[in-house]
Amino acid sequence: MKVYTKEIKVRTHERFELIDITDPVEEAVRESGVRNGIALVFATHATAAVIANEHEQGLIEDIKNKVAEFTEPGSSKWRHNMIDDNAHAHIGSALFGQERIFPVVNGRLVRGVWQNIFLLEMDGPRHERRVIVTVLGE
Amino acid sequence: MKVYTKEIKVRTHERFELIDITDPVEEAVRESGVRNGIALVFATHATAAVIANEHEQGLIEDIKNKVAEFTEPGSSKWRHNMIDDNAHAHIGSALFGQERIFPVVNGRLVRGVWQNIFLLEMDGPRHERRVIVTVLGE
Amino acid sequence: MKVYTKEIKVRTHERFELIDITDPVEEAVRESGVRNGIALVFATHATAAVIANEHEQGLIEDIKNKVAEFTEPGSSKWRHNMIDDNAHAHIGSALFGQERIFPVVNGRLVRGVWQNIFLLEMDGPRHERRVIVTVLGE
Repeated sequence: MKVYTKEIKVRTHERFELIDITDPVEEAVRESGVRNGIALVFATHATAAVIANEHEQGLIEDIKNKVAEFTEPGSSKWRHNMIDDNAHAHIGSALFGQERIFPVVNGRLVRGVWQNIFLLEMDGPRHERRVIVTVLGE
Repeated sequence: MKVYTKEIKVRTHERFELIDITDPVEEAVRESGVRNGIALVFATHATAAVIANEHEQGLIEDIKNKVAEFTEPGSSKWRHNMIDDNAHAHIGSALFGQERIFPVVNGRLVRGVWQNIFLLEMDGPRHERRVIVTVLGE
Repeated sequence: MKVYTKEIKVRTHERFELIDITDPVEEAVRESGVRNGIALVFATHATAAVIANEHEQGLIEDIKNKVAEFTEPGSSKWRHNMIDDNAHAHIGSALFGQERIFPVVNGRLVRGVWQNIFLLEMDGPRHERRVIVTVLGE
């Protein structure tokens, strides 16, 4: 059995942003030497999420717009905004999830043609966001 | 340590549809020979999701209606609809997630009485949807 | 390879409630003896969810309010409410997910400073909610 952990560091530039991390995640799977198992992609944050979808610029805008519409940044109804003006980002992170998991088969991360992996920033810009990739298998 | 991977193929018939895949997932767990570990249920698609809930016909309609209300099929505000008329399905797939994971204890997938496993189709009908089950443990 | 499973039992007191289960989850990781791997936190219910976020009282209220606004308890549009008045809780549980997964590195569950782990009750009060923690690794 093998367990391989790698940390990916990402800088973000906008309040809402989707950063494609497919390449470093797949690199971690290759480095792990795992032939069959799983790969966990986990952001150590409470105001960001990890999602998988198509890397198409229009869709990236659509997802950011939907997330903003749903989470309502700056709304006076959020009590947490009295402490820190980012309740919307906490809510999105909590409900959409900070991790996604993929099968690993024959040494490769399994994903569909349109499943790129993204860090979903909801409270940027941030100097450094951390994503942990844990590859586990044989 | 054992890792067992199985592919489930599903045909869908409606734009929004919930297809119960509990039986083939549990079959994969039995075939794996894994006594204790986890089972990952992963759809290789960017316009579908995997969820777990009660198999009750009224609730199935409710979930489909909520997903449609949230994702707004055909809306002119989605830029991706200029390329392909399915932005709503991408958004739902990205935010609800393409996978669910279950414990395996004493050779059986652990789930509550009301936790059936479903493929959530949001861009059907499709000739073939693929779900990968990875069972990992000892 | 090690697989360790622990059951956490939680009593809930409100219809919508966030119960912090970080301590017993971290205890399970310590008890497991796993140095590197993953920890799955899974609720065996179809009207509750597991999420991770900051334990701040204002934010807890915000998340409960957002979940209620999104799921619309008591709405006459939910067909499942003709059987059992909790369609909203099923919908939230299905879409937000009943599990979260964390890396385990050097014997410790990896989480950010603001990532506490919560059971999200949406159909309380309940005498007993069950959360299964499966720690898997080496």
